[in-house]
Amino acid sequence: MTDIDPSRRAALFDVLRTQRIETPSWAYGNSGTRFKVFAQDGVPRNPVEKIEDAAKVHELTGIAPSVALHIPWDRVDDYAALRAHADGVGITLGAINPNVFQEDDYRLGSVCSPDAGVRRKAVDHLLECVAVAEQTGSSVLSLWFADGINYPGQDDLRARQDRLAEALREVYGQMPEGMRMLLEYKFFEPAFYATDIPDWGTSLAHCLELGPAAQVLVDTGHHAPGTNIEFIVAFLLRAGRLGGFHFNSRFYADDDLIAGAADPFQLFRIMHEVAQGGGLDRATGVEFMLDQCHNIEPKIPAMIRSVCNVQEATAKALLVDSAALRAAQAEGDVLGANAVLMDAYNTDVRPLLAELRQDMGIDPDPMAAYHRSGYQQRIVAERVGGNAAGWGA
Amino acid sequence: MTDIDPSRRAALFDVLRTQRIETPSWAYGNSGTRFKVFAQDGVPRNPVEKIEDAAKVHELTGIAPSVALHIPWDRVDDYAALRAHADGVGITLGAINPNVFQEDDYRLGSVCSPDAGVRRKAVDHLLECVAVAEQTGSSVLSLWFADGINYPGQDDLRARQDRLAEALREVYGQMPEGMRMLLEYKFFEPAFYATDIPDWGTSLAHCLELGPAAQVLVDTGHHAPGTNIEFIVAFLLRAGRLGGFHFNSRFYADDDLIAGAADPFQLFRIMHEVAQGGGLDRATGVEFMLDQCHNIEPKIPAMIRSVCNVQEATAKALLVDSAALRAAQAEGDVLGANAVLMDAYNTDVRPLLAELRQDMGIDPDPMAAYHRSGYQQRIVAERVGGNAAGWGA
Amino acid sequence: MTDIDPSRRAALFDVLRTQRIETPSWAYGNSGTRFKVFAQDGVPRNPVEKIEDAAKVHELTGIAPSVALHIPWDRVDDYAALRAHADGVGITLGAINPNVFQEDDYRLGSVCSPDAGVRRKAVDHLLECVAVAEQTGSSVLSLWFADGINYPGQDDLRARQDRLAEALREVYGQMPEGMRMLLEYKFFEPAFYATDIPDWGTSLAHCLELGPAAQVLVDTGHHAPGTNIEFIVAFLLRAGRLGGFHFNSRFYADDDLIAGAADPFQLFRIMHEVAQGGGLDRATGVEFMLDQCHNIEPKIPAMIRSVCNVQEATAKALLVDSAALRAAQAEGDVLGANAVLMDAYNTDVRPLLAELRQDMGIDPDPMAAYHRSGYQQRIVAERVGGNAAGWGA
Amino acid sequence: MTDIDPSRRAALFDVLRTQRIETPSWAYGNSGTRFKVFAQDGVPRNPVEKIEDAAKVHELTGIAPSVALHIPWDRVDDYAALRAHADGVGITLGAINPNVFQEDDYRLGSVCSPDAGVRRKAVDHLLECVAVAEQTGSSVLSLWFADGINYPGQDDLRARQDRLAEALREVYGQMPEGMRMLLEYKFFEPAFYATDIPDWGTSLAHCLELGPAAQVLVDTGHHAPGTNIEFIVAFLLRAGRLGGFHFNSRFYADDDLIAGAADPFQLFRIMHEVAQGGGLDRATGVEFMLDQCHNIEPKIPAMIRSVCNVQEATAKALLVDSAALRAAQAEGDVLGANAVLMDAYNTDVRPLLAELRQDMGIDPDPMAAYHRSGYQQRIVAERVGGNAAGWGA
Repeated sequence: MTDIDPSRRAALFDVLRTQRIETPSWAYGNSGTRFKVFAQDGVPRNPVEKIEDAAKVHELTGIAPSVALHIPWDRVDDYAALRAHADGVGITLGAINPNVFQEDDYRLGSVCSPDAGVRRKAVDHLLECVAVAEQTGSSVLSLWFADGINYPGQDDLRARQDRLAEALREVYGQMPEGMRMLLEYKFFEPAFYATDIPDWGTSLAHCLELGPAAQVLVDTGHHAPGTNIEFIVAFLLRAGRLGGFHFNSRFYADDDLIAGAADPFQLFRIMHEVAQGGGLDRATGVEFMLDQCHNIEPKIPAMIRSVCNVQEATAKALLVDSAALRAAQAEGDVLGANAVLMDAYNTDVRPLLAELRQDMGIDPDPMAAYHRSGYQQRIVAERVGGNAAGWGA
Repeated sequence: MTDIDPSRRAALFDVLRTQRIETPSWAYGNSGTRFKVFAQDGVPRNPVEKIEDAAKVHELTGIAPSVALHIPWDRVDDYAALRAHADGVGITLGAINPNVFQEDDYRLGSVCSPDAGVRRKAVDHLLECVAVAEQTGSSVLSLWFADGINYPGQDDLRARQDRLAEALREVYGQMPEGMRMLLEYKFFEPAFYATDIPDWGTSLAHCLELGPAAQVLVDTGHHAPGTNIEFIVAFLLRAGRLGGFHFNSRFYADDDLIAGAADPFQLFRIMHEVAQGGGLDRATGVEFMLDQCHNIEPKIPAMIRSVCNVQEATAKALLVDSAALRAAQAEGDVLGANAVLMDAYNTDVRPLLAELRQDMGIDPDPMAAYHRSGYQQRIVAERVGGNAAGWGA
Repeated sequence: MTDIDPSRRAALFDVLRTQRIETPSWAYGNSGTRFKVFAQDGVPRNPVEKIEDAAKVHELTGIAPSVALHIPWDRVDDYAALRAHADGVGITLGAINPNVFQEDDYRLGSVCSPDAGVRRKAVDHLLECVAVAEQTGSSVLSLWFADGINYPGQDDLRARQDRLAEALREVYGQMPEGMRMLLEYKFFEPAFYATDIPDWGTSLAHCLELGPAAQVLVDTGHHAPGTNIEFIVAFLLRAGRLGGFHFNSRFYADDDLIAGAADPFQLFRIMHEVAQGGGLDRATGVEFMLDQCHNIEPKIPAMIRSVCNVQEATAKALLVDSAALRAAQAEGDVLGANAVLMDAYNTDVRPLLAELRQDMGIDPDPMAAYHRSGYQQRIVAERVGGNAAGWGA
Repeated sequence: MTDIDPSRRAALFDVLRTQRIETPSWAYGNSGTRFKVFAQDGVPRNPVEKIEDAAKVHELTGIAPSVALHIPWDRVDDYAALRAHADGVGITLGAINPNVFQEDDYRLGSVCSPDAGVRRKAVDHLLECVAVAEQTGSSVLSLWFADGINYPGQDDLRARQDRLAEALREVYGQMPEGMRMLLEYKFFEPAFYATDIPDWGTSLAHCLELGPAAQVLVDTGHHAPGTNIEFIVAFLLRAGRLGGFHFNSRFYADDDLIAGAADPFQLFRIMHEVAQGGGLDRATGVEFMLDQCHNIEPKIPAMIRSVCNVQEATAKALLVDSAALRAAQAEGDVLGANAVLMDAYNTDVRPLLAELRQDMGIDPDPMAAYHRSGYQQRIVAERVGGNAAGWGA
């Protein structure tokens, strides 16, 4: 691997060095399933401590300089102060993620609720998040709705789309110049019969109606079994509507496992389409964000692993010999074209990435460096008392 | 059931009497799986005999007055003569379905093939079908593409979308006033890694680019496991882009079983959304077409059953007490709203439909009437020799 | 429907009158998804109040005379007293369900944990539940294990089977004469890579090793997409190893919706196999239990609906003309045999069940009777303060 | 990679050198989907030519010395002569695969058919295959049944199990000492409602009844979406009932793609369980067989690729540091244990396998060697006229 041509290696490093992967504040807190949340020691108790953990991940990987916030879990009185604190540890505040699913009012939905008052409340929260984003310097409003229904007939599917469209229009209209709305879809959960934005088609159709600052957010765990995610990625890039990713991985439903843990080949194929479609050029605005739950494993190392997995997939995607690929494709050489792709995938890029990290002045092995750092021991010792952060706070 | 209010029954009958379900010429011929096509006796050997079978289905059900054609399987020298023959037996010629998947040239796709010559050939065939439609008096061009790839890297996903868009544009531009293009999607098969129109989102996005005469065709068997089809139906109706249905049913993949055989409740929910969204008003142009394979069961009775199943689901959908449903939905009465829907579904509409048929002057029991008619014995006796129709002819 | 032959109706009523459907104590408490538990008013705060709710369901349906307990959620100091209380309201205590998934010790599993101490603790709890069952007069120990792993390599799949077998052996050996172990399987959740009893094959293989008092428990929501559950039911009945059901329904994963809500035809097919296989004869010991989560709908009405749905499916199954079915099957008459089944399914059995209830001296419409009863208003008024029951208590 | 410890490398090579992967005669012929079989040039026209192709694959890979036969597709008058011919080109005749699905008699099933005459015919064919196996020197009878039903009620699920058991018993009883029956299961297709052996549980239950010479055959493409195949492999190995594999890969249904093409990580995990469970020790009798359809790609290169993919997965599995894995598992170190597994998977084993091949005296790059060999050109030139082999011949 390390026998790669020097000029190619330089070009590769240039791209890899500028890649930005955003970690989510909520993944540093406790999470679990409906059956049990297993509490861990050393978990942050407030946004400041979450940012501290994010900073550690960035320090060790070099490519995770921002953290997504979740409101109200990360609500503070003074966002300017939070931003300044983050700057101080080398972190910027990334996407703002509203929460319109955890109050009793939202039992039947938020922006799609049959109750106008509930819808108003939800939209007001979304608008609050626009304001938060302005204060945190965030340019991305990341919208996921738990809205849906559990039983056939429970509510009118079409009327709910009308309500959804109306809410999105209002929020879109209030976004300042330069802010983007990323609209996430999800196949199911927590709604079990119909979800109001169940697939990328629904999300795209709403984005097209809203305008160019509305784009689709692809959470890699939110699809029906067997869905070809890289097709969606390629399609949305072609349409100029790929807003970004929530990376995680799954074997079954929305398992929220470490990105690349369940199907590393799929992650590679996704990154291949991103690379082919120009999405690694930061000007296209494709956001690479993680959205995971580390239910039984320690959170910071899991985040480091996730960042590295996305990076490895990216490196492999960049190793694809595009000219050879295009030639084989043009000839209809099925096996030859597939072989070009597999050659890149089968390459062990870990030595290359170790070199990249050394070039970037960081430890070649982020996981080992974390274990050596004593950080885990320190937070376990220090973060005693208070309320450990979790999905509810 | 028969204690339904007379004025309501009259309104119901008015809708049911005007429902139109189109049967596909190819379902009268032999079909099977890749493992085996079991030949049946009495199968038609040409389009005229297929039309004869379709006429029988219409005679007995009263609501199946048209037949979809598949070109080249139903290619004839003189379409005007075929049309006249059909008229003579009370049948109109319906949707024209091109075939761009059964020649060796199409190994790597048709309109998405990397080979420009193959694409030209495919588009020419589509244009031929536009011309056929003009001769048969068909207003619907029903497009399904087997295009896709079997291996990652085999071809460029995005380039294939470009080719697809270009081909559709050319054909769309050649359609006469009043003709509609119905663009079908399919999750997988025969392509096993990526299909070029795998879902309704892809189909809708292309239709939006093409113009108002392009609409989405929903084949009920073409979705990922767990997909909520009625949501798609409601969404497309709201967007004015539901072109119609290819009904059939499935437990696993694209099983092509008798409509309503696998999940009659799903068929009811679909028809409920159609009814709620105005799709039973024939002015909306929603086409109700069957697309099935009767691999092991006799074809004409299977078709009668299918027509009746769609009709029963429609009748149940019309029995939904919309006012009560809306009231319960507005109150957030989850169980109450669901109960309104289930009341209609749990009703046995067969006596009602028997009365409807008597009103229409046909036998109240189409299946019994078929068995009594001697038609099956006659075709078995008469259709000897020649090549039985199948997917290849 | 009500024109059914009197002697056949009597036979039907005899079976329906003796059917027993067990409701679960935990479904009367609050439940939700990992995203949110929506609290409801009037929810019971202890086992006594849960039993009171179960008694109400039985009073109105006439066929739900027992309630399953979950330990420790329903742990009391004096089980004899609890049993006496239940007797007093006409309820018997049914299956005992141990909980070995909600303590921090169980992060890596219970009986399959790599930690011998954790395994010991889990087995001790199972043995405690055997003792509880003896005190409550329960003859069924219902075992579900959340055990599994989230990441490939996390633990040794085979070693976990060894540990599982050892634990089951010990518990099985401690069961008194007349007690049965019902071993549940689940496709996934909360484990996301591998579950230690993921399917009926695994459960059956362990049961075969244990002995005749070990049987498979089929939770209708615990299968891979597309799984034919009635096949499993038929197979297990044939093998004498169908212990019973946990009924609920699903569109996606383990949604825990009201039984029959998602696919009433499937529930009918299951009951058809039960009926054909002799499982409605109470001597076979097939337990009909509900296991649901009423996240957004009121719990008691949802339970009434569930009991009625199972009863309706049973009634339809009993209406199948078995002689006609066998005759058509023997002749290879595909459509005819299917039609016999569908005739029963399409029948509206609600009038028949209303008559049955009148025969049994209860209200013909249990749901209306509940709403008229004032019970809901009473519990909302009375059950104020204290801790509402939920999955954690 | 090549810096592996010499003694470890030697041990590794010892295992890899003795691995045996059987190719299927039918994969050298034409195949396709129900929509189209694309004919290829140079395809064999008889068993002798298929064996010739298999010999080429073995010559280039060094680990594919046997070929599975399908009867009647490979029926010959003189099996002794066929065997002698195979010996002459370095090939042994492997598993015998009966075909009881391609005659009109089998429309409603073979050994499960409601027609006793059809069942007799099917069993007779199975017995014929036992006799064929004795003549070809095959010790494996590989049974797959297309049996099942398309519509609920079509036949009695339980009666079909009785018939199945009876047929298997008769065939099992006729097998000579040393022959094994490998019983394959399949989730669906060609049956679309219920398949008579739909899962490993069904297959295992029948094998347990039959005796020790009956074992389960795992076709990697025959599972419900999301099924954890390596769990099944580990479980069957533990039970001493893993007969072997039919390798291929899939994204959707039974796609029959090149093994390892869709999910190379899954193939690795499977081989890891095989290795952990002792299945690479040839004494355990686990058969590694391919069963694929090369619909659009050239067959011989696709087979070479498949063999190499299985070999690469095996090599990676052998690289797993078992001691480190066990240690991390014992400590409950979730991330650490997973990392040990991923370290092996992420290793590029191609250089190592190139060295192995050189040790074995064959070309380090089998695919390049094939393209250089001129074999493809020769068969295209020579195999003109006659009937190209396919699924029907």
